[in-house]
Amino acid sequence: MDYQSIINEIAQEVAPFLKDGKVADYIPALASVNPEQFAMSITMFDGTEYHAGDSETLFSIQSISKVFTFTLALKFYGKALYKRVGYEPSGNPFNSLVQLEYEQGKPRNAFINAGAINVTDALVNYYGSTETASQEILKFIRSIAEDDTVKSNQSVAASEMQYGHRNMALANLMKSFNNLDNEVKDVVKVYFKHCSIEMNTNMLSRSMLYLANHGVDPITEKTYISESKAKRINAVMLTCGHYDASGDFAYNVGLPGKSGVGGGIVAVVPKLMGICVWAPGLNSNGNSLVGTMALKLFTNKTGLSIF
Amino acid sequence: MDYQSIINEIAQEVAPFLKDGKVADYIPALASVNPEQFAMSITMFDGTEYHAGDSETLFSIQSISKVFTFTLALKFYGKALYKRVGYEPSGNPFNSLVQLEYEQGKPRNAFINAGAINVTDALVNYYGSTETASQEILKFIRSIAEDDTVKSNQSVAASEMQYGHRNMALANLMKSFNNLDNEVKDVVKVYFKHCSIEMNTNMLSRSMLYLANHGVDPITEKTYISESKAKRINAVMLTCGHYDASGDFAYNVGLPGKSGVGGGIVAVVPKLMGICVWAPGLNSNGNSLVGTMALKLFTNKTGLSIF
Amino acid sequence: MDYQSIINEIAQEVAPFLKDGKVADYIPALASVNPEQFAMSITMFDGTEYHAGDSETLFSIQSISKVFTFTLALKFYGKALYKRVGYEPSGNPFNSLVQLEYEQGKPRNAFINAGAINVTDALVNYYGSTETASQEILKFIRSIAEDDTVKSNQSVAASEMQYGHRNMALANLMKSFNNLDNEVKDVVKVYFKHCSIEMNTNMLSRSMLYLANHGVDPITEKTYISESKAKRINAVMLTCGHYDASGDFAYNVGLPGKSGVGGGIVAVVPKLMGICVWAPGLNSNGNSLVGTMALKLFTNKTGLSIF
Amino acid sequence: MDYQSIINEIAQEVAPFLKDGKVADYIPALASVNPEQFAMSITMFDGTEYHAGDSETLFSIQSISKVFTFTLALKFYGKALYKRVGYEPSGNPFNSLVQLEYEQGKPRNAFINAGAINVTDALVNYYGSTETASQEILKFIRSIAEDDTVKSNQSVAASEMQYGHRNMALANLMKSFNNLDNEVKDVVKVYFKHCSIEMNTNMLSRSMLYLANHGVDPITEKTYISESKAKRINAVMLTCGHYDASGDFAYNVGLPGKSGVGGGIVAVVPKLMGICVWAPGLNSNGNSLVGTMALKLFTNKTGLSIF
Repeated sequence: MDYQSIINEIAQEVAPFLKDGKVADYIPALASVNPEQFAMSITMFDGTEYHAGDSETLFSIQSISKVFTFTLALKFYGKALYKRVGYEPSGNPFNSLVQLEYEQGKPRNAFINAGAINVTDALVNYYGSTETASQEILKFIRSIAEDDTVKSNQSVAASEMQYGHRNMALANLMKSFNNLDNEVKDVVKVYFKHCSIEMNTNMLSRSMLYLANHGVDPITEKTYISESKAKRINAVMLTCGHYDASGDFAYNVGLPGKSGVGGGIVAVVPKLMGICVWAPGLNSNGNSLVGTMALKLFTNKTGLSIF
Repeated sequence: MDYQSIINEIAQEVAPFLKDGKVADYIPALASVNPEQFAMSITMFDGTEYHAGDSETLFSIQSISKVFTFTLALKFYGKALYKRVGYEPSGNPFNSLVQLEYEQGKPRNAFINAGAINVTDALVNYYGSTETASQEILKFIRSIAEDDTVKSNQSVAASEMQYGHRNMALANLMKSFNNLDNEVKDVVKVYFKHCSIEMNTNMLSRSMLYLANHGVDPITEKTYISESKAKRINAVMLTCGHYDASGDFAYNVGLPGKSGVGGGIVAVVPKLMGICVWAPGLNSNGNSLVGTMALKLFTNKTGLSIF
Repeated sequence: MDYQSIINEIAQEVAPFLKDGKVADYIPALASVNPEQFAMSITMFDGTEYHAGDSETLFSIQSISKVFTFTLALKFYGKALYKRVGYEPSGNPFNSLVQLEYEQGKPRNAFINAGAINVTDALVNYYGSTETASQEILKFIRSIAEDDTVKSNQSVAASEMQYGHRNMALANLMKSFNNLDNEVKDVVKVYFKHCSIEMNTNMLSRSMLYLANHGVDPITEKTYISESKAKRINAVMLTCGHYDASGDFAYNVGLPGKSGVGGGIVAVVPKLMGICVWAPGLNSNGNSLVGTMALKLFTNKTGLSIF
Repeated sequence: MDYQSIINEIAQEVAPFLKDGKVADYIPALASVNPEQFAMSITMFDGTEYHAGDSETLFSIQSISKVFTFTLALKFYGKALYKRVGYEPSGNPFNSLVQLEYEQGKPRNAFINAGAINVTDALVNYYGSTETASQEILKFIRSIAEDDTVKSNQSVAASEMQYGHRNMALANLMKSFNNLDNEVKDVVKVYFKHCSIEMNTNMLSRSMLYLANHGVDPITEKTYISESKAKRINAVMLTCGHYDASGDFAYNVGLPGKSGVGGGIVAVVPKLMGICVWAPGLNSNGNSLVGTMALKLFTNKTGLSIF
C-alpha cells in the first residue's frame, strides 16, 4: 500500500480542522503551543518510514509515557502488578477520584493518572530510588526509540508540579489506602518528569515497534518484553488508552493506541507498523481532535483495523 | 492448525473446574441447569466445524442476543442509533442504574441491559409492532445460524418477566428521561423473549461468521451488514462484551466476544472463524467461569489474539 | 405576639416574588395551576386561627402526604420500620436511584419518594389490601385535619400514574432488592392516590397540631402517636423534609417542615402551633420559592426557630 | 430538675457498654487511650455545673474544633462564606471525596473534613498568616471556655500530619478546583493543630454556652456572634454534626451536637445549657458509642429535645 500518499492525503484533509481543537491550558508551557501544527509518522518493521507534516518537531509526550512505564512495571512484576492496579476501563472522566475511593485506592488501569502514578511508585521500589527510576525510564525510552537525544523538559516538569494538585490528591488518596509505598511528593515528581519527556512523531512511531512485534524490536531484534505481555499491553491500550473515549477510539479507529494531552497519539498495527500522529488541539475528552480524526481516516483508507 | 486436538485438550484441562462456577439462580429455569456441562464449537469460513463436549445441547443464549439486536439496530439506524445508546465501556457493574441516571437515561453501550432494552425499543419502532419485532429478530438469528429450528423458550421468558424488576427499573428510568418510545412493559417483554432464545454452541459459532467476515456470511455469501459496521460491532464486543470484566477478557483472551448468564460465550477471530463455548457455572462477574478459561487457553495455545 | 399582623406583612413582602417560581410541570394537572397564588395559615393549640391570602383554595398536597403515611407506619411498626427505611438525610437529589442502588434498596428516609413508596407498601401490608390502605390513610388525614371533606383528586392520581416512570423505577429497584412486598404497580397507585389529596392551608396548619403537641391533638385531645415518636417525626422533617435543601431550610427557617411540589409547606413550632404556607411556584430544589421565603420571614420576625 | 442525679444515673447505666466501642486507631496517640473512661458535664446559664466521671481528664477535641472555626468564619464572612462551603448534610461517609468532586470542590458543610479545612483556609486569609490563625483560634477557644490553660498537643498534631493523607487528598482536590487559597500543606497544618487541642468535658460544656444563649455568653455577657448566626450554627450541628449518623442523632437525641473521634460530643439545649460527654470508644460511624447513648438517655429522662 502507498502509505506515503495516504498520509499526505490525510494531512490535507485534516488541515481545515486544526483550528478547532483546544490546546491544553492547565500549565503555561502547554498553553503556549501553536495549535496549528500537525505531524504523522509511520515506521515499518524493516525500518521504512513515512512522514507528513512537522515530524521533527518535539512535543510533550505526557500520558504516552504511561505505555512505557506500564511496560517496565509489567515486565518486572508480572501478575503481581495486578495487586496494585487493574486493567479494566474506568468508565468516566470523573472516576479518577470517585472510583478510586469506592475501589479502596486501587486504580482501574495503568493508563489513568492514578494508575500511572501507582506504576511509577512500583518502579521506584524496583529501582531503589527516585533518581534511578527516572534515569532508567528515560533510558528505556531512548532504547526503544533508538535515539539518545530524548530528554525531559525540566521547566515543564516543574510547572506540572506547581499545578499538579489533582494528581497530588490522587496520590494522597492511594497512600491513605496503603497503595503507595514511597513519599507522595517524590512519586509524583518522578511521574511528572517522564510526562514531560519531549519527542517527535518520528521517534514515537519508531518506539511502538516492540509492541507491534509482540515484544521484540523487529529492527534491532532486542527483546523488551514477552509476547504474551506485549499483547496484554496492546489490549489495555485498546480498552483504556483514551480515557472516557476509549470505546469511541476502538469503535472508529480500531487500533490499540494511547493519547497524551500534548496532542500526541501513538498506535500499533500488530505485526505491521508503529504509528504516531500529533496535533496539539484537543477535543472535549482531552484527546487530540485532529489526531483522532487522522487515525480514523487512516484505518478507513487502509482497512488496517484489528477487527 | 489442528483445532480439533486443541479443543479436545481444552475440554480435558477445564473439566476439573466445572464444579467451581455458580449457575445463575435469579429464575428457576436457569437455576435448575446442571452446572457440569461443557461444550466448545468452532466454525471456519469454509464451513468446517470442530466440536467438543455437549455441542448439541440447547441453552439459554441470554445476553448473547444483544449482539444480534445491536446488529439489526446498527444496520437500520446507523449513526442515529448513537443518540439513544453509546459505545463506551460502562466501568462498573452497579453502573447500570447509577450511570444511567447521571447520564440522563442514555445507556453506555448496547451490551449492558439498559442498552439492549433501548436497542429493542428502537427495533420495535422500526418494525412497527412488538410482535413483528420479535419475529424479525428470531428470523435474523435463524438466518445467520442457518437453522430454522431456533426458538425462544416461552416459560423462561415468562419467568424472566416475573422476576425482572431490575430491568423494569432500568426501562422505567429511561422512559422518565424520554429515551424509550414504547410502553415499558411491552419493550421489556420483547427483550426477555429474545434473551430466552435457546441455541447450542454449534449454532452459535456458526452465527458468528458474518461478524468474523466483516458483514458477509462466508458460506452463503449473504451480506448482513456493511464491513465498517461489522468491525464496529466487533470493537464494542471487545470493549464492552463482558460487563465489568471486559478489560480482563481483552487482556487475557484478546478476542471480541460476548457472554450470557446462561453460560455461553461467543467470540470472533476476524477473517478466520466463529467460536462458541458453553459452561453454565458463572464467575463473580456473571460470565461463564470455565468458558472464559477455555477461551484463554484457546488463544494461548493458538496465538490467535487480535493483538 | 400579633400573628395576624405578621402574616399580613409577610403576604405583602413576598407578593412581588410570586412570579419568580416555576410551577411543577411534569403532569398537566399541576402545570395548569396559576402560579400567582399565596396563602398562609397558623393554628394555635386553643384553636385560634390566623390566615392570609387564598387559605380556602384547595391544592395538591403531594409530598406533604409523606408526613401522614410515615406517622401511621411508625405508629404500627415502631423500630421495625427501620429495617425497610432509614432516617438519614439523603444528600443529593440524584440520590434517589444512585443511593438506593448502593444501599441495597433501602431508602435513606421516609420523605424521599423511594422511602414514601416503601412506607406505603408497609401500610398495604398492615391494612391487608390496597383499598383499605387508601381509605385508612384518607381517614387519618380527615381526622387530624378535623375535616371530612378532604379527598383525593382522581384525575391527578391517574395523571401521576401515566407519567410516573421514575417512581416506577424506584419501586421496581426496591422490589429487585426484596424490599417491597406487594405488586409494584399496586403500591405506586396507592402512593399516587394519597399524593393527589387536595387540601388548603387552613386544613393543613390544623393537621400539624398533633405533631406540634407531641402526638396528642391539643383541641380534641385525641392521641395519634406517642410523644417520643412525634418528636422523631419532627426530627426527620427537620433533617430530611426538603430533599436536597433540608440543610438550607434548617439553616434559614429553623423549624421542622415538609414541602410538596404542589407548592405547599407545612411546619411545626413545637408546643405552640401548626403552620402551612402555599405558593405554587417552585425553586430549583423543587420546594415552594415563596413558601420558603415566607417561613424565613416568619421565624425572623417572631424568633420562633427551634434553635 | 435534678440534673446531678440524672447524670449519675446515666453514668451507671452506660458503664457496662464502655468496653464495646473501638478507640480511633489511625494515629498512635489516639490508639493508646484507655477506652474505659467516661465523663459528662453540664453547664447552666448561671454557671452552675454538674459533672459525672472523669470530667477533669483532658482529651483530644478533634472535630469538635470545627464548631469553633465555623463560628469564627461565619462571624467574619457571613453569607460570603457560602461561596466556599455549603450547609447541607452530606449523605454518606464516602462522600468526602466523591461528592467533593461532583460538586466542583465545594464541601457540603463546615463539619465534614473538607469543609473544616476550607473554613481554616478562610481563617488563614482573614488573619493574614497561619501562625496568627492558629493563635487566634486558640484564643477564641480559651475565651469561650473561660480557661487560659487550653492548648494543642503538638505531638498529636505532628502525628496527624504524618498520617493525614486523606485530608491532604481533600485539600489538594479543593485546591485543584481553586477553592483553597493558601498552600495545601500550610492549611492542613493549621487544621490539625486545632484538631489536636485538648480539653475536658468541664471546659467543653462551658464553651457551648454562647451557642445555647444565641451568641452571648450568659455569664460573662460577652457577645461572640449574632443571634441569627448562633441559631444557624446550631442548625448545622443538628443536620450535619455527626457525619452519616446526623439523622440518627437528631432522631434519637434531638439536640444540636458535634462529635469528635477523640470520643467527645458537645450538645446544646437552646436557652438552657451546654453539655459535653466523653467516652473514647467509637461506634461504626466514628461517633462515641457511649457518648451517643448517654445523650439519648439524657433527652429521654429530661424531655429536653428541641422537637
